[in-house]
Amino acid sequence: MSAHFDGWPNILEAQQFTRKWMELEFFPLALEMKKLVLRGILEILRGKVMGTLFYESSTRTRFSFETAMLKQGGNVVSTENAREFSSTVKGETIEDTIRTLCQYYLDVIVIRHYEDGAAARAAAVSSVPIVNAGDGKGQHPTQALLDVLTIMIELGHIDDIKIAMVGDLINGRTVRSLSYLLAKFSGVKIYFVAPECAQMRPDIKDYLVKHAVEFEELTDLRDVAGQVDVIYQTRSQKERGTSFDRNDRSIGFFDINKTILNLMKQDAIIMHPLPRVDEISTEVDADPRAAYFRQAGNGLYTRMALLKMILAPNF
Amino acid sequence: MSAHFDGWPNILEAQQFTRKWMELEFFPLALEMKKLVLRGILEILRGKVMGTLFYESSTRTRFSFETAMLKQGGNVVSTENAREFSSTVKGETIEDTIRTLCQYYLDVIVIRHYEDGAAARAAAVSSVPIVNAGDGKGQHPTQALLDVLTIMIELGHIDDIKIAMVGDLINGRTVRSLSYLLAKFSGVKIYFVAPECAQMRPDIKDYLVKHAVEFEELTDLRDVAGQVDVIYQTRSQKERGTSFDRNDRSIGFFDINKTILNLMKQDAIIMHPLPRVDEISTEVDADPRAAYFRQAGNGLYTRMALLKMILAPNF
Amino acid sequence: MSAHFDGWPNILEAQQFTRKWMELEFFPLALEMKKLVLRGILEILRGKVMGTLFYESSTRTRFSFETAMLKQGGNVVSTENAREFSSTVKGETIEDTIRTLCQYYLDVIVIRHYEDGAAARAAAVSSVPIVNAGDGKGQHPTQALLDVLTIMIELGHIDDIKIAMVGDLINGRTVRSLSYLLAKFSGVKIYFVAPECAQMRPDIKDYLVKHAVEFEELTDLRDVAGQVDVIYQTRSQKERGTSFDRNDRSIGFFDINKTILNLMKQDAIIMHPLPRVDEISTEVDADPRAAYFRQAGNGLYTRMALLKMILAPNF
Repeated sequence: MSAHFDGWPNILEAQQFTRKWMELEFFPLALEMKKLVLRGILEILRGKVMGTLFYESSTRTRFSFETAMLKQGGNVVSTENAREFSSTVKGETIEDTIRTLCQYYLDVIVIRHYEDGAAARAAAVSSVPIVNAGDGKGQHPTQALLDVLTIMIELGHIDDIKIAMVGDLINGRTVRSLSYLLAKFSGVKIYFVAPECAQMRPDIKDYLVKHAVEFEELTDLRDVAGQVDVIYQTRSQKERGTSFDRNDRSIGFFDINKTILNLMKQDAIIMHPLPRVDEISTEVDADPRAAYFRQAGNGLYTRMALLKMILAPNF
Repeated sequence: MSAHFDGWPNILEAQQFTRKWMELEFFPLALEMKKLVLRGILEILRGKVMGTLFYESSTRTRFSFETAMLKQGGNVVSTENAREFSSTVKGETIEDTIRTLCQYYLDVIVIRHYEDGAAARAAAVSSVPIVNAGDGKGQHPTQALLDVLTIMIELGHIDDIKIAMVGDLINGRTVRSLSYLLAKFSGVKIYFVAPECAQMRPDIKDYLVKHAVEFEELTDLRDVAGQVDVIYQTRSQKERGTSFDRNDRSIGFFDINKTILNLMKQDAIIMHPLPRVDEISTEVDADPRAAYFRQAGNGLYTRMALLKMILAPNF
Repeated sequence: MSAHFDGWPNILEAQQFTRKWMELEFFPLALEMKKLVLRGILEILRGKVMGTLFYESSTRTRFSFETAMLKQGGNVVSTENAREFSSTVKGETIEDTIRTLCQYYLDVIVIRHYEDGAAARAAAVSSVPIVNAGDGKGQHPTQALLDVLTIMIELGHIDDIKIAMVGDLINGRTVRSLSYLLAKFSGVKIYFVAPECAQMRPDIKDYLVKHAVEFEELTDLRDVAGQVDVIYQTRSQKERGTSFDRNDRSIGFFDINKTILNLMKQDAIIMHPLPRVDEISTEVDADPRAAYFRQAGNGLYTRMALLKMILAPNF
């Protein structure tokens, strides 16, 4: 008996996932995948073919999805550069591209796109499940899932956590999707730490108000580093128009370094969706609270679990 | 007992295919593939590796070939950008590239190239079968096969059809290859509908005359839309130098819209090799006579059948 | 009982390989692979996933590694353009990229990079084996292995050979790695044939002196063509800054053509790492002494053997 969410099996935005689905279906299966992958060969998805259609390159996310497929015995057709080389250049709409790929008996299509809402447009015409692997400044729902899975694995609970989201919040996709997901849990307190010019957009803040999630906006990470259970650091999204200088102390303090480590609680964790540039200094990497590479690993289990649920629900 | 054609198992140009081979081998196997792919796992090509060598990008065609391989249990090494990134930049000839790939025990090589005749040059030095997936303004023989398969599936026969080929005929590869194939059947009548500056090239017209295929050239689709069984629409090949303006009514009428739908016979079909830009308006998509997405699906069965015939003839 | 070398199972530089390992492990397994691949399906690497991370494109090398994996039943996640499209553009270090990929349970990572030493930097932080598929002007150790395998297969021995290395020696990666390997054998004599401006770098010459390998520098291939067992021709590495004109007879003679063929011993061979431009004229190709395409094939067996040793040592 499944507790699936609205829109299933399309995975388009973090709002879709219900708390019940996460707790009864997703967390247990992702944890099982973590065990299974160690044992080696899975044949769950033998004969299934995933299409990865990346209009915007992301080797990390693409490898994560593709490995999740291959490690379960499935296979992949892949393009890492759909924008420049596909029929898009010739003027084809994403709707036509999807209608065509559906004819090829692909079992699932994973899309990364540079425009907000592209995945939803794809799903509207698709006869096979669509997974949004990031669309413009919109969403990146599987990143949000791996983020909550990480909090669950590292801290043992999501209810009642205090989390600081730090950096280029106005352009960051991951902090948006994560905010939606955290609103499904209770007692969560969010600190948005960003310069005033890059604070979280109003739509998310409205959503949090509506769902009675406490949040606070500030400009200096040092003010909350000692209180939070999670620091979720983000990169300056220069490709999406970041204009502030992270090193300009007059607009705030957003870096994670030894200073922050010294302020942090002993059982707190540092997360980051990666790639990391210099917003977390490498001196932090060896600290056991640095969870960002383990977090990346949870991305594999997350995508393995999702693909298994979508493609072999009764296996 | 095989009715294979000259040059087998290389697939280089539509002229190769005999009517006997299409009727006794290709159509039956392609239809069988259509059934088999629904049942899921095929293991026919287990252990076989296809190389896809695309010097000119075509996500659609590449995905179609690769899915055809994977759905039969085979595997793929792939480059979607051979022109820019391979040793071509360093000055290697295609002959040397092919001689090298032959040493890697690839079981079949699928080539898409920007120069006419590249596939034939490759086949001349290759010890493994070469499949032409489009070369310059030359040919695209597997597209021609999926086109006649579509006509066979949709109309039940190819003999005696009336077909309008519409648009940028001077640059279109698909209409050239399809003309060669239709000449294998009897009673076919072709209407070439294009502005005078983009009419079908003389070599094809000479071929049709020689094979006693009736054809006519005109500039207004409305004049024949009511008489034909198939309208084969094509895209303006801007990347190959199309210079006419499709919307300039003084040179003719080449669009498919409600006007054309209203003129067409009830059992006629509309085909298009895709991608479609605006030469078929989206209002046409919902009409049952719009066969272009089903046509794309036939590409999968076509390539599955060809790969099976080439790689596992006695399975 | 294994005779593996220092650093195993990372494959970073030709110096690592011991003569004992080559003779007891590598040559026998590579020759076995040559036989096995003919028989078809291998399942040795079923369930294993290789990541190919190419920051610099090389379709030839990538296809060779990927085919070596697929032909043994393994699978591949691949990027042919990591430099332009991955998170490198966003400023990620190779160390972070590798730490992330390790979290994805990739079983081995094959790296090609534009910077000297990149593979070693990757290995320093990796929890999975790293194979160097060429880094900058540094090394290309699997090329060196396939080169000595070729000499072993073609001539039956490596001790006591006379070899001319010809062309752009200052920029050539392959001749550097091969020199390191030949120093493991005895009685080898090397002739470096290059214009003065492109002669072998001092580090290699120092290494040869230290290991008592005889070598000589000259500028005209005709002077030694009749004495050597192997002519190892190389391409002008224009992308790495070659500045001399191969056709300028005032600086020397470096081409292989009929003149050179006529001078060569009957049982000598011509090798080339490919791609070949015009430094070996095509009139040479039909001569049985032209071993360069067979040499490329040995690349497949070399990589099959290495991947088997790394991923399934006890199979």
